[in-house]
Amino acid sequence: MNAKYQHIKVIGFDADDTLWVNETYFRDAELEFAKLMAPYETANKIDQELFKKEIENLPLYGYGVKGFVLSMVEMALELSNNSISNETISKILDIGKAMLNKPVELLDGVEDTLMTLSKSYRLIVVTKGDLLDQERKLEKSNLLSYFHHIEVLSDKQESNYSKLLGHLDINPSEFLMVGNSLKSDILPLIAIGAEAIHIPFHTTWLHEQVATKDIKEKKYKTLTSLSDLKAILN
Amino acid sequence: MNAKYQHIKVIGFDADDTLWVNETYFRDAELEFAKLMAPYETANKIDQELFKKEIENLPLYGYGVKGFVLSMVEMALELSNNSISNETISKILDIGKAMLNKPVELLDGVEDTLMTLSKSYRLIVVTKGDLLDQERKLEKSNLLSYFHHIEVLSDKQESNYSKLLGHLDINPSEFLMVGNSLKSDILPLIAIGAEAIHIPFHTTWLHEQVATKDIKEKKYKTLTSLSDLKAILN
Repeated sequence: MNAKYQHIKVIGFDADDTLWVNETYFRDAELEFAKLMAPYETANKIDQELFKKEIENLPLYGYGVKGFVLSMVEMALELSNNSISNETISKILDIGKAMLNKPVELLDGVEDTLMTLSKSYRLIVVTKGDLLDQERKLEKSNLLSYFHHIEVLSDKQESNYSKLLGHLDINPSEFLMVGNSLKSDILPLIAIGAEAIHIPFHTTWLHEQVATKDIKEKKYKTLTSLSDLKAILN
Repeated sequence: MNAKYQHIKVIGFDADDTLWVNETYFRDAELEFAKLMAPYETANKIDQELFKKEIENLPLYGYGVKGFVLSMVEMALELSNNSISNETISKILDIGKAMLNKPVELLDGVEDTLMTLSKSYRLIVVTKGDLLDQERKLEKSNLLSYFHHIEVLSDKQESNYSKLLGHLDINPSEFLMVGNSLKSDILPLIAIGAEAIHIPFHTTWLHEQVATKDIKEKKYKTLTSLSDLKAILN
């Protein structure tokens, strides 16, 4: 075991794009949306405008598929100057329903890693987004038995983590967070005195991206796969 | 103090229509929707069809405003045989945004009652629906300081309550739930051996209604106002 982690008692795992594929489905949905809107704008412009609309609506809708679908409908009305067909709107609703109905596709080595780590640590899930959708994915993942606690947060900022650790009686120095988003899973944890391990996913939503210049001193480890955790933590 | 409640240590409060007005806003939104759809159907038929659509989508969308808006959009396409105008769809999206932006209107006596009870009991909020929207309403309500814990559940069935009480180390016999919905706030609690007090709101969503014949033996008290709790619990 790596000495840096010898105080760790509890490991928190992000879910989307850490335990299972998620962002890929959003990328696919954006491509489908761009195809539907192709008569009105270039794919590049459609992508940019949809992103702007999502960020505009984020304080009101929060993270998750439903808010994403509502933003696509709104964007379709705007990009077409209110001339979008009912059939296209119906297809946008269907994109959302298909996303919510997707099977859960675990990332490589997840189950084996959780099985091993659960023998020496308390494992919890700390995810953000839509409550029902996250619960459904956990259910479908068959991973529930490895976790002592599941927390779905509306956002993943320092204050959200501090409140959660306080509520679960976990000392930040005994907590390690593992996730794919520097912004949501790594930097806030370093800031509150916990440990964090970054496992990048091949695609990251623009909103979750952090400029490297914002990271002054790298206080976290980066791994290429969740399976690598075993060597470090056992 | 009423002897029935002498073991109670923790009181759980439902939020929507128990602490503040909520269902009224959904009723208003349904009326607005029926007006928008008036060219296509009678108000009664629109109401019935929207309700059916909401129930159909409930397993996928869950409770809350965003799913409600998505169901209204879908219903508008269907009721109009795909001939609804873009302007009307835009108005439906606006209905949802207005609902999410509504101020929080506390019910009579709520703050005074919570202030009094918080001196003798641990108070928690147990609500269901959209995580971000419920957190936002709690924030706006200025009631947060009275509560030891806030729990937003995706559903309020026996298993959800059992898990929550287990997680918070609360013995069911020491727990009293207060809420306006017999189906969500009262019957599941009685079933797991906790106490419950029903405070009806003047309007109840059809989905939350329970046939009186399904209630064999009345093991819970009914009050007309939250303020009446003080006399019973102090």
